[in-house]
Amino acid sequence: MTRVDYPEPLKVLISHLKQLPGIGPKSAERIAIWLMQRGADTSQSFSEAFQTAGDLVVECDVCGFFSTEEHGCAICGDSDRDCAFLCVVEQPTDILPLERSGAYRGHYHALRGRISPLDNIGPDDLRIGELSERLRNGSFTEVILALGSDVEGEATANYLVEVISGFPNLSVSRLAQGLPAGGGLDSADELTLMRALQGRVGI
Amino acid sequence: MTRVDYPEPLKVLISHLKQLPGIGPKSAERIAIWLMQRGADTSQSFSEAFQTAGDLVVECDVCGFFSTEEHGCAICGDSDRDCAFLCVVEQPTDILPLERSGAYRGHYHALRGRISPLDNIGPDDLRIGELSERLRNGSFTEVILALGSDVEGEATANYLVEVISGFPNLSVSRLAQGLPAGGGLDSADELTLMRALQGRVGI
Repeated sequence: MTRVDYPEPLKVLISHLKQLPGIGPKSAERIAIWLMQRGADTSQSFSEAFQTAGDLVVECDVCGFFSTEEHGCAICGDSDRDCAFLCVVEQPTDILPLERSGAYRGHYHALRGRISPLDNIGPDDLRIGELSERLRNGSFTEVILALGSDVEGEATANYLVEVISGFPNLSVSRLAQGLPAGGGLDSADELTLMRALQGRVGI
Repeated sequence: MTRVDYPEPLKVLISHLKQLPGIGPKSAERIAIWLMQRGADTSQSFSEAFQTAGDLVVECDVCGFFSTEEHGCAICGDSDRDCAFLCVVEQPTDILPLERSGAYRGHYHALRGRISPLDNIGPDDLRIGELSERLRNGSFTEVILALGSDVEGEATANYLVEVISGFPNLSVSRLAQGLPAGGGLDSADELTLMRALQGRVGI
């Protein structure tokens, strides 16, 4: 008697799903079984979604956001954007929340990471050369650093300030740190309160 | 200025991933971005895994486990299995843990669900007709009910005992209930202890 196991194609699907971030062996199995019980059409539709996204979605060479070759980059190709402002973010995914805020109408530059010596990520691993290039050739007057407020974000910001100081006509700013909207003082940690005090504005 | 969003193929992929059990909008986005950053080959490989599993994996008409048309059912086609025993489980996924236990060498029958009036699932929605058919035509002498020990499992078991009583030469058994292996009395709930006491065995 051979001990029974899932058919090979199902095992292959489960081992694929297990690789995805946040998906453990149990979830992978549950997802695969769910798919099998939905029938071949559902699997087909997923297959096509993966294929199409993999084939068509590319990284914009300029800003680092996602785009398609057919439509070009929705940010860089938008002539209504203010060419004086360049907002530097760590990941392309950081661009959407900034867009949703509705408070920014300029261009973006995704570094695709941040300086993190513990993870062996130095300035050369980021899109900092591309940033210098854009600053040299563009019409930007202000660079806004929209990086994380953790240690790696601070380190990256410090490094970038150094780089940007080579462009004397450019001003640099960073996102304000302070109380998040809707939060009371009791829910703010000490560091946040310290920074909110340091960054207090006259009224 | 148009507010920027992910390219259409990426949005389609994210909306697919969101449908999967246990995957919320944030996870779906993280997974999709992870895939895009891995490049087109990875997406292609996932696409093929979904496609192949969807195309090749079928449900065995007899036992309800997964099989492929090419290889047939690994359980029903195994002539080394003991044809006297039929183990009834709720879901095909329940078969693997039983197999791994190494304590069973007979055949299986997955009901593909359990009686649950709250979810509008009655006996007619389960593979109970197919079970009667197998009992009528097979050479089984014992049916082992390996159902959950919750209310729905109990209800299903009671219904099946009724059905199987129509076959006078068949004995019915169910999995023992009691202390799980490796657990002390302090970690067992009262119902488990009650059942362990009721099911005590002489030594």
